[in-house]
Formats: sequence, C-alpha cells, structure tokens
Amino acid sequence: MKAVVFDENLKLVKDYKKPSAKSREALIRVLVAGICNTDFEITKGYMGYKGVLGHEFVGIVEDVNDEDKSLLGKRVVGEINCGCGVCEWCQKGLSRHCFDRETLGIWKKDGCMAEFVTMPVKNLLIVPDSVSDEEAVMVEPLAAALEILEQLHIRPDQKVLVLGDGKLGLTIALALNAAGLDVTQVGKHQNKLDVTCNQGVKTLLLQDLTISKTWDVVVEATGSINGFETALALTRPRGVLVLKSTVASGKEFNFAPIVIDEITVLGSRCGQFQPALRLLEQRRINLKPLITNVFSVEDAIKAFEKNKDKSSIKVLIKF
Amino acid sequence: MKAVVFDENLKLVKDYKKPSAKSREALIRVLVAGICNTDFEITKGYMGYKGVLGHEFVGIVEDVNDEDKSLLGKRVVGEINCGCGVCEWCQKGLSRHCFDRETLGIWKKDGCMAEFVTMPVKNLLIVPDSVSDEEAVMVEPLAAALEILEQLHIRPDQKVLVLGDGKLGLTIALALNAAGLDVTQVGKHQNKLDVTCNQGVKTLLLQDLTISKTWDVVVEATGSINGFETALALTRPRGVLVLKSTVASGKEFNFAPIVIDEITVLGSRCGQFQPALRLLEQRRINLKPLITNVFSVEDAIKAFEKNKDKSSIKVLIKF
Repeated sequence: MKAVVFDENLKLVKDYKKPSAKSREALIRVLVAGICNTDFEITKGYMGYKGVLGHEFVGIVEDVNDEDKSLLGKRVVGEINCGCGVCEWCQKGLSRHCFDRETLGIWKKDGCMAEFVTMPVKNLLIVPDSVSDEEAVMVEPLAAALEILEQLHIRPDQKVLVLGDGKLGLTIALALNAAGLDVTQVGKHQNKLDVTCNQGVKTLLLQDLTISKTWDVVVEATGSINGFETALALTRPRGVLVLKSTVASGKEFNFAPIVIDEITVLGSRCGQFQPALRLLEQRRINLKPLITNVFSVEDAIKAFEKNKDKSSIKVLIKF
Repeated sequence: MKAVVFDENLKLVKDYKKPSAKSREALIRVLVAGICNTDFEITKGYMGYKGVLGHEFVGIVEDVNDEDKSLLGKRVVGEINCGCGVCEWCQKGLSRHCFDRETLGIWKKDGCMAEFVTMPVKNLLIVPDSVSDEEAVMVEPLAAALEILEQLHIRPDQKVLVLGDGKLGLTIALALNAAGLDVTQVGKHQNKLDVTCNQGVKTLLLQDLTISKTWDVVVEATGSINGFETALALTRPRGVLVLKSTVASGKEFNFAPIVIDEITVLGSRCGQFQPALRLLEQRRINLKPLITNVFSVEDAIKAFEKNKDKSSIKVLIKF
C-alpha cells in the first residue's frame, strides 16, 4: 500500500506492507489524513520516531478482529493513544497517559498517512453523517484544544488570550469561543486571524498588542520559546499559562517570573474525541475555513512542503 | 545606625541614616534578622537591588506614625510586601502581587538587617509571648512554605515529595507535614534531613531515590535548574510541580515533558503570616533545629560567609 514514511528522510513508499487487524483491532481504509506540526517536528527528529507518519484521520472500517463486528463499514475517527488497558491510567479512562502506550504515528505505532491503518476497536468513534470527512479529520486537533477545558475551569468573566495563529492556535480559539468564553487571539497573519474573527473571536495583530500582565488565562500556541516568554509577560499574577506546544529553550530561560507572579503553567496535550465530535455535529464550530490545501497521496511530499508555507493553514492528504 | 548594605559589595555600614516612620508606618527596633538565600542571590545581582538587605525580622515597635498607637512597645513581625493599598490586588488582600509594591530588602525598600526598620502598620503582626525571637524571625519563610497550601489543595492520600534540603526545603517539608500530609523529603545531606526526620517527615538521600513519574506533588526547593529537571522526571502525569526557587536555565531546557505529561507547574512565593504564627504558637512545628548559627551584627559579613557553608542551615543576625 502507499504510505508516507519517515525513516531518516520523508518519503512516499508505494509498497509498504498492508497491516492486518490483531485481536480487538479494526483495519481501517483511510479516506483523509491531516498534517499536524508534530508530523513536521518528527521529520526533524522529535520523539526519535520512525515509521508511517500521521495521527489525524477519518476512514472506513474494513475488517474487525473482535466479537463485536458492529463497526464494519462504518466511517470512524480514532483516539491516537493506545493504552495497555489494565494500568491505573487506562482504568481511569486516561489511556493517553498510560506508561506503556503506543501513539499513532508518534510513538511505537505506524500512523495513518497510509491507505490502511489498524486501531484498537475501543479507540474508534463513529462519525455522524452530518460531519464531513474534512471536518472529521480535524477531530483530533479539536479534541486537543478542548482538553484545556477538561483540565481547567475557565470562568465566563475571565479574559483568555490565545497566542499564535497557526492551525493549533486557531483551533484552540474556536474551541474556547464555542464554550462561550471571552477569547482574544493574537497572531502575525491577518488572513489567519480572519478565520476566527469571522466566528466571533476577538483578534489582534501581535504588533498591536500591549504587553502587560493582565490576562487571566494565556494559551501558548506559537510553538516557539519566544512565544512562551511573551506568554509569561502577559499572564496576570496567579493567572494560568496553558502550554500547548512542545518547545525547547536553546538559550538562557529565566523561570523567576513564574515564581514571583505565582503563575500556573499547565501542560496540555491530547483530548477526548466525543466532545469534539458533538461540537461539530451541533455546528457550534466551523473548522472548514482552516483547510487551505488538499493533496492526493501521490503528492504527499508536496503537501509537507506546503505545510511549511505561511499562506497555508491546514493541509490534508486524500487517499 | 548599623546596617548590612549591598551596594555593588556587601558591607556593614556603621553610620547608616536611621529611618523615621512616615504616615501609617511604624519604626521598629530590630531584635533578630534572618539570612535567606534570596539575600545571597541579591549580592550576586538578583533583582538589581541595592540598599539595606534582609526581609526576615522580629523587633519592638518604638514609634507609630498613626492614630492607632496600640502597637507601641509590642514585639512584631512584618509581611514583607508593601502594596499601594488601593489597587485590585491590595483590595483582595493580595498586596504581595500589587504592581506598585515595595518589598522589604528586595525591591525599592530598605530591608531589616539594620538596627531600625520602618514598616506600614497594616503589615505588622504581634508575636505571641510563647513564640521566641528565634522562631518569630522564621515566620516569613514558614509563611512562604504555607503559601503552597493557600494555592493548592493537596489531598491526604496524595504523595508529596520535597526536593532539596536547604532551609527552604526543610521549612516546606515541616509545614506540609504539620498539615497532616504524606511528605517525603529528598536531599544530599543526612544531617539536614535529620531535622525533618525527627519531626516525622520521611526522608531519603538523593542517591537512594528511584527516578520515576510517580509523585502526585513535587516541590522544587533545590534552587538549581537541575533540580527542576529532576522534579519533572518525578512528577506523575497530570501531577503538580511546585516551583519555589527562582531559577534560571543557562543551557538547553526541554519543556516538552510538561506538555506530554500534562504537568501543572505552580509558581509559589510569599505567604500570609497569621497561619504561620498560629502553627508556631500551637507548637505544631519546631523550627529551632534549623538554626545553626547566630552572629552579632558586628559579624554580619561573617554570617553571610557562614550561610554559604554546607554545614549551616539557618543563620541569624542579632542586633
């Protein structure tokens, strides 16, 4: 089968071995996969991962190796963390923190940028008919955005600032906006900010932002260490800085403001799919304007190139 | 008057101008002052502060420039952050986050390592007779330790690790232990760990600690960036890392574990004095074993030298 593989280099492999469903797994024919910046980071060495890339997909179940065959033929999305099922984390419904987890296309498990992918049956959710393939493929990043609300109670009277206007920042701003919160988004690109502005988010170009410690909640979604420093300079004393991007500091970084202003830095990663699917089904959020490019799998390498382009937001790959 | 001053160099000045109480201030004759590592950091440039050092004291009120003279002659301690009194922070009782605050011996206000110091009347608390001078002078660091419990609900079934056995780490371990929590303290010096072990804290030498992400709450009190990295490697997914020391990273620092494990990094600084005084008055905590050295003000420079010594814990200066 065709598969987008990272193995020291990024390449499209045309004869990758088609997987088969092991016990309690489903075999899924992928319809669409999305490119996340994490995929791009992996091609630069993040997590030391090698294999099929991709963790955002929608597909059709073609085989089920389980007593319950009800998913056969269904259109599904899949939660990307595959836990052991027996540890305390899995028992609490937090397989995404299982110490023995495999993570689709990121850690120990071939990803979904291929014609076929296998997933544990328990990780799959049926996509409602009213949700398109292009929306469904973005359930994963939307769930990651909603994770903030699973971790943190943000009150309606609090001022929330989302820093960054990449696909992650835009998705977060839309997700928090859909929850009725007072959201301002700051970025460098008016064309990207327009996407959330059109759905009711207050937006501001970075150059017009006054740097002062006045925001109750600041979400760092720039993916850069400078963004983290800016976020610290914007979070009010005793406020919360939500850290969404996995950044590293290559230079001197001063942690003293965290202590002096008693900031809470809250790391936030993957979320549950069900709330994300519900928002899409209820049309409370429109992710379609994020999609700037759709490539066929034959042009997957071009798709990755396009993902680097500042004019693009979400790049999808069709199979 | 005699005063311990930092002005590019640390020195004992014998003819420093005696302050006088401005409106709503008290003039206090200092009995004992304590050396905190923050004082030591200031002598290396922290906060860019110059002036009389010191923010830990107990003293006798000699003059009150206020209608209410009831504090005259009383033995007092004083909360070190002096707020404007009118902003939203001060109105909430959080003067320690007032943007216009002065902080005793740290920011814009001469400290207490002098024969006399002035303080706003509202910052002063009378010390109960049963609390000795040596205990009272440690109300400030004890309040800073208890600040953790003002910010964070730690459940009795949670496992708390305090990293570091300096005076800060020891005080925190004793404070959390006094709250009935399950506290383990890790450090490099058996003689220091003995101080908390003798009061019921579980203690462990760093070399005997297994590094695994199993602790619900980890308090970083080593004062080093390596301590922060170790703390991250010990905090369980979705756990809390309390950052107590104002550290800076001079090298590459990877923030990804905060995101991947969804850690809450909670900065924590100064606390309220009243709960600290109550614990001391009720004999629920014994801080006296922390005191290793007492110097007279004439030997203040020696006291600072002794503070660097690994055999010393708390060094006091008597006036």
